[in-house]
Amino acid sequence: MVLVRNILLTIEYEGTNYHGWQRQKNAITIQQLIEQAIEKVTGEKPALIGSGRTDTGVHALGQRANFKTKTPIAVSSIPLALNSYLPPDIRIINAQEVPLDFHARYDVLGKKYRYRIYNSVIRSAIHRNFCCFISERLELDRMIEASGYMMGKKDFSSFCSSGSSVRTRIRTVELLELTAEDKMIDIVIRADGFLYNMVRIIAGTLVEVGRGSMDPRQVKVILEKKDRRYAGPTLPPQGLFLEEVYYGGILDTPGTM
Amino acid sequence: MVLVRNILLTIEYEGTNYHGWQRQKNAITIQQLIEQAIEKVTGEKPALIGSGRTDTGVHALGQRANFKTKTPIAVSSIPLALNSYLPPDIRIINAQEVPLDFHARYDVLGKKYRYRIYNSVIRSAIHRNFCCFISERLELDRMIEASGYMMGKKDFSSFCSSGSSVRTRIRTVELLELTAEDKMIDIVIRADGFLYNMVRIIAGTLVEVGRGSMDPRQVKVILEKKDRRYAGPTLPPQGLFLEEVYYGGILDTPGTM
Repeated sequence: MVLVRNILLTIEYEGTNYHGWQRQKNAITIQQLIEQAIEKVTGEKPALIGSGRTDTGVHALGQRANFKTKTPIAVSSIPLALNSYLPPDIRIINAQEVPLDFHARYDVLGKKYRYRIYNSVIRSAIHRNFCCFISERLELDRMIEASGYMMGKKDFSSFCSSGSSVRTRIRTVELLELTAEDKMIDIVIRADGFLYNMVRIIAGTLVEVGRGSMDPRQVKVILEKKDRRYAGPTLPPQGLFLEEVYYGGILDTPGTM
Repeated sequence: MVLVRNILLTIEYEGTNYHGWQRQKNAITIQQLIEQAIEKVTGEKPALIGSGRTDTGVHALGQRANFKTKTPIAVSSIPLALNSYLPPDIRIINAQEVPLDFHARYDVLGKKYRYRIYNSVIRSAIHRNFCCFISERLELDRMIEASGYMMGKKDFSSFCSSGSSVRTRIRTVELLELTAEDKMIDIVIRADGFLYNMVRIIAGTLVEVGRGSMDPRQVKVILEKKDRRYAGPTLPPQGLFLEEVYYGGILDTPGTM
């Protein structure tokens, strides 16, 4: 009898050159490339279950995905084996065995994202694929004040792109931290779950506040309206990083910048 | 009579896709692309004088270069005008008028470089073009101890690649700071001048110490030998950033990560 194992991968990638995570016809995606690498290493056709999708251009420092396999390869050898079939902008940084009923999407307890804003008159050559460029001067204090109204258990319907069908739009934001160093403003946000484009709309709303075209207290009104049209714009994908996916206990590994 | 002005540019670039700074036959360089942009904007054939060369793959946050021009364009409009003819991995981040006898290479008082080491078992997808990957575990304390022997006014002949002809190999290292955050080790070094490959050989020597194959005090011996063969290897270019060029006074602008 051949033993089936359930393997959980931790994955870092630069999203610039891919059409996001999710497998698609006629477009190269990260899920597809990793599934092809698994097939080359194991000889099996795997079903790789990601913790969730990331859009075109979005990056990950700690995406998670699981697959079942009968391969006898030691789990500690899996990252190197897969990486040898992957391009350098996708790296398997960890592999671990998990219970057979573990599911990388259903079992998510929370996630942490980072959104990076480069606030300068001139775009950055070095950071160009890893941040959103905003030329108007942003006032961090105003953005921090606005972020305070987004903390806690709230209905985030106003911060959700249309077309997403979920049972409830109530989410709990456990951490929402803004820091600035030189020209870079970092928004770090941890929640028990995220609606579609939620981080990019929160960032877009904080930018509206930071440039002075929206009052920080307006965030309270936006939340009450439960209507996407009241929030700020969806900022571009290249500023977004999926940093960590939480499953609780020993499965958590750090994946910060 | 047409007025001649001397313009000093501050330039940020990712070196990955270029054969370094210096104009060459049959290879695309940063100097060449900026000279072509100046020609398109001014209609003149400029001689762009850089503060010094950078090698293939080396990045800059604050490279400096000057050129003389008769163009009537306002100096504040020069960055945007040039950037419209440059690829996104090269950005003119500042332009200022300087005295006619100012020379971006001869007038350098000092420079600051950063060398980034990604110390992990697995390469980074996100940082891959912006760091040197070292898989053996490095002990920061040992590296910091070794760096202490490199501070001050010393003959750095052992930390200079052969083939460079300079009058003296005595340089004063004013700052040599090592910091670690997560898997990234940053070496920041400021000196009144740098020999060819000096930062990359210093970083390579500190790595030898950090991985335990060289004693920190060995640096004293290496300096006394004045012989390149005693120092560590020259680390690869993608970890190196030219952060600042100092001319003294108002010409200094920050260009840190």
